[in-house]
Amino acid sequence: MTNPSSGPLEPIRIAQTLGACADAARPITLAMFRTQLSVDNKLDKGFDPVTAADRDAETAIRATIAAAFPDHSIIGEEWDAKSTASPYCWIVDPIDGTRAFITGVPVWGTLVGLTENGRAIAGLMEQPHSGERWLAVDGQLTATRHGTPFPARASGVTELAQARASTTSPEHFSGAHLEGWDALCREVLVTRYGLDCYAYCLLASGHLDLVVEAGLKNVDIAPLVPIIEAAGGVVSTWNGERAEQGGTCVAAATPQLHEQAMKILSDAMLR
Amino acid sequence: MTNPSSGPLEPIRIAQTLGACADAARPITLAMFRTQLSVDNKLDKGFDPVTAADRDAETAIRATIAAAFPDHSIIGEEWDAKSTASPYCWIVDPIDGTRAFITGVPVWGTLVGLTENGRAIAGLMEQPHSGERWLAVDGQLTATRHGTPFPARASGVTELAQARASTTSPEHFSGAHLEGWDALCREVLVTRYGLDCYAYCLLASGHLDLVVEAGLKNVDIAPLVPIIEAAGGVVSTWNGERAEQGGTCVAAATPQLHEQAMKILSDAMLR
Repeated sequence: MTNPSSGPLEPIRIAQTLGACADAARPITLAMFRTQLSVDNKLDKGFDPVTAADRDAETAIRATIAAAFPDHSIIGEEWDAKSTASPYCWIVDPIDGTRAFITGVPVWGTLVGLTENGRAIAGLMEQPHSGERWLAVDGQLTATRHGTPFPARASGVTELAQARASTTSPEHFSGAHLEGWDALCREVLVTRYGLDCYAYCLLASGHLDLVVEAGLKNVDIAPLVPIIEAAGGVVSTWNGERAEQGGTCVAAATPQLHEQAMKILSDAMLR
Repeated sequence: MTNPSSGPLEPIRIAQTLGACADAARPITLAMFRTQLSVDNKLDKGFDPVTAADRDAETAIRATIAAAFPDHSIIGEEWDAKSTASPYCWIVDPIDGTRAFITGVPVWGTLVGLTENGRAIAGLMEQPHSGERWLAVDGQLTATRHGTPFPARASGVTELAQARASTTSPEHFSGAHLEGWDALCREVLVTRYGLDCYAYCLLASGHLDLVVEAGLKNVDIAPLVPIIEAAGGVVSTWNGERAEQGGTCVAAATPQLHEQAMKILSDAMLR
């Protein structure tokens, strides 16, 4: 990795910046989580404080990135993209899992990733209420809770019959996508719903084996790709392409499991 | 409340016993949560350490109850019922949400409740990983995280269009039950899946407004009834009966919301 305009882009600087992004976002998101304010306004459909928390957190994250790497591009969920000539682009989703956020469920997360020529090379997910953080840089993943490390390795599960599978909501699927998910459900050990970005991180810590989704934006998945890969997992679109751009997604604990899931999903797409 | 064989059954003694039950179960359940052991054995379908953790935690809880109230009956998920002549019966589910437990999601809980002539009068739910505890005795609810109180009051939502609804899994419904849930989903603001007992407690803290389930056992719901009611919520079966015995369940933040949900569900049952 090189940064032509600012000297070498060292992994330690990337990790420090990702951590600083999470630190900047945390007080803003936590101040709104599980408050009556966030709910009342969301329900009124007028001024939307979840989006306000999103915007303020993204502003803080962008300022952190710009201070460290002024020449890099930034894509965020809430504000217009900052485009530069740099091959490096930061991907920001300040609150992934808005539905979890407005229902008080601590499985939403702050996502920040870094891509080099479109390929994700570093990523962070932080769940501020639980204090859990997954951070992947240079192929190395660390998972911590309030700073204390815990396991950061995908399971060794290679068979669908042993796989714990998850998707955020069956309502996100329709047509062939729904058929694919339903076919997969019939083969796996157990299915779980409602986890958003937290599911990919549970996979990266060995607690889930398969995460399948559709309708993702690039900010929903690009920061998670390095986390999954550094944990030993495999992630792609349902067509087998790199997952950074979003759309469909299959993340698996092992290449064998990924292959079996892909076969079932592609069969459903062909029917 | 009176305890004919042991003198008055004071709320403070009930609260102390419920807290002692949670304290007894916590080290046993946490020692197994997010360990490879729990998963490997579950997947082997042989010796099942989730059930082992269940059994050991229930044994510890039963010993705690028996020491405080030797004359009372006890019903638990794992061991045979202890039947006495007392009108009081403790209801124990050491790990409610086994699927959450084996997939690393901290929304399972330890449930302990107390019934008097079949009616739930006190209940506790503790999520040991997050440190959250909801405890209802004598119509008073306290919610704490690592001992620090947080809000313990249901929302004031009275309209389905503003309601945040939850069920553990759409797979738990079939036939008329599935039609009822689907009809409800079309009316509410947002739906969430995968929360087990945690959903009822989020309702009791104002973050969810409606929880709908089917196929519940009495140990799954009886300890939660006093928590929901003390928070100002309403809970019944889909037929409008008391929920302690399990089966179907509708919990709502307000009587108005409960009535609207009941109408949709009963219409679906009649079709």
